[in-house]
Amino acid sequence: MIIKFFRNARIYTPEGKPPSRGADQGTLRIFKRGAMLVQDGNIEAVGTEEELLANALVKKVDEEIDCEGCCLVPGFVDPHTHMCFAARREEEFSMRLAGAAYLDILKKGGGILSSVRHVRGASEQEIFERTRTLALSALSFGTTTVEMKSGYGLDTESELKMLSVIRRIGRETPLRVVPTFMGAHAIPEVFKGNGDGYVDLMIGEMLPAVAEQGVARFCDVFCEEGVFSPEQTRKVLVEARKYGLGLKIHADEVHDTGGAALAAELGAVSAEHLLAASDEGIEALAASGTVAVLLPATAYSLRKPYARARTMIEKGVPVALATDCNPGSSFTESMPFVFGLAVLVMGLTVEEALVATTKNSAHAIGLGAECGTIEPGKNADFLLLDGETPAVLAYHAGVSPVKSVFKKGERVA
Amino acid sequence: MIIKFFRNARIYTPEGKPPSRGADQGTLRIFKRGAMLVQDGNIEAVGTEEELLANALVKKVDEEIDCEGCCLVPGFVDPHTHMCFAARREEEFSMRLAGAAYLDILKKGGGILSSVRHVRGASEQEIFERTRTLALSALSFGTTTVEMKSGYGLDTESELKMLSVIRRIGRETPLRVVPTFMGAHAIPEVFKGNGDGYVDLMIGEMLPAVAEQGVARFCDVFCEEGVFSPEQTRKVLVEARKYGLGLKIHADEVHDTGGAALAAELGAVSAEHLLAASDEGIEALAASGTVAVLLPATAYSLRKPYARARTMIEKGVPVALATDCNPGSSFTESMPFVFGLAVLVMGLTVEEALVATTKNSAHAIGLGAECGTIEPGKNADFLLLDGETPAVLAYHAGVSPVKSVFKKGERVA
Repeated sequence: MIIKFFRNARIYTPEGKPPSRGADQGTLRIFKRGAMLVQDGNIEAVGTEEELLANALVKKVDEEIDCEGCCLVPGFVDPHTHMCFAARREEEFSMRLAGAAYLDILKKGGGILSSVRHVRGASEQEIFERTRTLALSALSFGTTTVEMKSGYGLDTESELKMLSVIRRIGRETPLRVVPTFMGAHAIPEVFKGNGDGYVDLMIGEMLPAVAEQGVARFCDVFCEEGVFSPEQTRKVLVEARKYGLGLKIHADEVHDTGGAALAAELGAVSAEHLLAASDEGIEALAASGTVAVLLPATAYSLRKPYARARTMIEKGVPVALATDCNPGSSFTESMPFVFGLAVLVMGLTVEEALVATTKNSAHAIGLGAECGTIEPGKNADFLLLDGETPAVLAYHAGVSPVKSVFKKGERVA
Repeated sequence: MIIKFFRNARIYTPEGKPPSRGADQGTLRIFKRGAMLVQDGNIEAVGTEEELLANALVKKVDEEIDCEGCCLVPGFVDPHTHMCFAARREEEFSMRLAGAAYLDILKKGGGILSSVRHVRGASEQEIFERTRTLALSALSFGTTTVEMKSGYGLDTESELKMLSVIRRIGRETPLRVVPTFMGAHAIPEVFKGNGDGYVDLMIGEMLPAVAEQGVARFCDVFCEEGVFSPEQTRKVLVEARKYGLGLKIHADEVHDTGGAALAAELGAVSAEHLLAASDEGIEALAASGTVAVLLPATAYSLRKPYARARTMIEKGVPVALATDCNPGSSFTESMPFVFGLAVLVMGLTVEEALVATTKNSAHAIGLGAECGTIEPGKNADFLLLDGETPAVLAYHAGVSPVKSVFKKGERVA
């Protein structure tokens, strides 16, 4: 048994109640001179330094760490990434700057389909090394738990190859990794014009194989005009649920196809993107308690209007934030950058953005009981910031104020 | 004599002609497999690797560096910063998020005046250490030359203290530092309601002292409603010119007070901010060839509309970009972040943004003949990027792709 005592920290943390309709997204607990006792990687106690000095465990401490007055916040949970890929798409970025639309690039066999060709052509080891580099960079920016989606394989073998890489990242880096099967990310070229045929392949072959290997925790579908219709989305997700997978939807990213309402209806844990979500869609999310996972770096990178975060929060939708890290529409692994955009462009308060990048994002990947807040019983995943309050995450613009990263009580970056 | 041969680089550089009306802001020279010969810190030759291998100097090379196919661009020149300060203003950032206006905070003795109290109360050594930390961080983000303004002293002794720190940064770090005297940054509290009295002090005491010590290359004035009027601005700058200082104006940042036109009329090397510049002001800058120094991170951080960069470029104004690094309205030292905002929010092309952060920004601080492009005779100040083209500076959003930084041919970060 190893006991560590972290003292002299300004602790800012969301409270642990699950997000729900009407919950105040912006409430934090603050200990201006705070301390934390960590036993075998889990938080045993948190409070003022004075309170904790009176705790019996303090006498058994193996290591005492002076946080030197730094701001201490939970480690970031990044609940939506496509960080596992085989090649960048820098050229396509320049095409978009010159005016090409994202969905047009996809129609022409670029975009996601270009990443599919690269993943199919690369060895598992090549993909692993590239993904590890990006994952370790994310860790240095303060991400301690990350969701990673497959979806650049689009055939059974290549999807399993990606899920295998994703599992290795969780085993061979300090990051906790939550794997999502996203065969339904695009319609592969061989099924062009025959989306139903591809849905049948997913249901008949891919989902059973993924379930048998136990390599995914969630199933996600890109519900969008020209990609998967709401009916196809429903078909895939209903089947996925039979295998015990949690459900996610890429919903209303470019067009409002009713994806948000569908996510609510199916009891999905999250609806993601939501740039084009209607008022009805937002109401449905609020009623179901489905987490809205918003991706401001994607709006930034695609130069689109941002999701209506303020409306969602005001209507009682639990809002989470993610990088959407991918080689096309949002090539960033930096949660501090996302935090800054959320505050300065989307108009979240600092408190709301902290809840959205820690507690709510943990709930968006089913880990609300294990991480996302600084509370007894949670993993001791936390960050020390070069600043006095979490505001420094937006204040120090374009620069990461993350000084050190702790995963289960160990300093890992 | 030390000769270095940098080979296997994808070189992207602006061309060296001074910026002028009608000059194409976006023209680059590109060597897809390029090389460079550096002699005693200066560029001796640049071209294709094949061309340079035929150069007689190659036989005398002391060191050969394989750039491994990385993109090579000139080091960033950051032509507008207030990086020399004594304390952050994180609290004020939170006040602004809660709705307080920048000029209102200043009126209440916060903002710049708060930084003035901190600078006056700190020792030169304290200010130096803080400024050095920030300067070295800027260097790691690719800034090889930086302008730094005084202006948090607002009395003779404190302004000279700042200029002394700024000089030390240039001597004790690898950065080249260009010092600007900006006594006219705000009206100090003791002169409240008596701006003319403070102008008299600047003219009678501060400017002569600064000139005698030879510690400034430029003089800058914050021409703005409630700060310095166009008449006061003119008075200070006309006097500064007598001492051989180059002229700069913080022009039309919040209100259009005709600052751009005044900069053009006085032959200032640059007009800075320009968020509220009128069409007439922009026309005047185009006619005079005055460089417009735009500060997108300030618009981002203050949540204001950005300067009309596209209009300026289309009308023939040479546009440069800077961080405006300061503890209030733009706390960032990252030129890649500024580059990304310029491309993705202001609509500059990648080529225009590269010219704006290197060649034009060098001209904006009078160093166009010495740095800002990769050409024979210039300092060998350059960056290797983790990417194939300068587009990676916007593509890898919120993350710096700067792998290594060379100053006068030496790797310094």
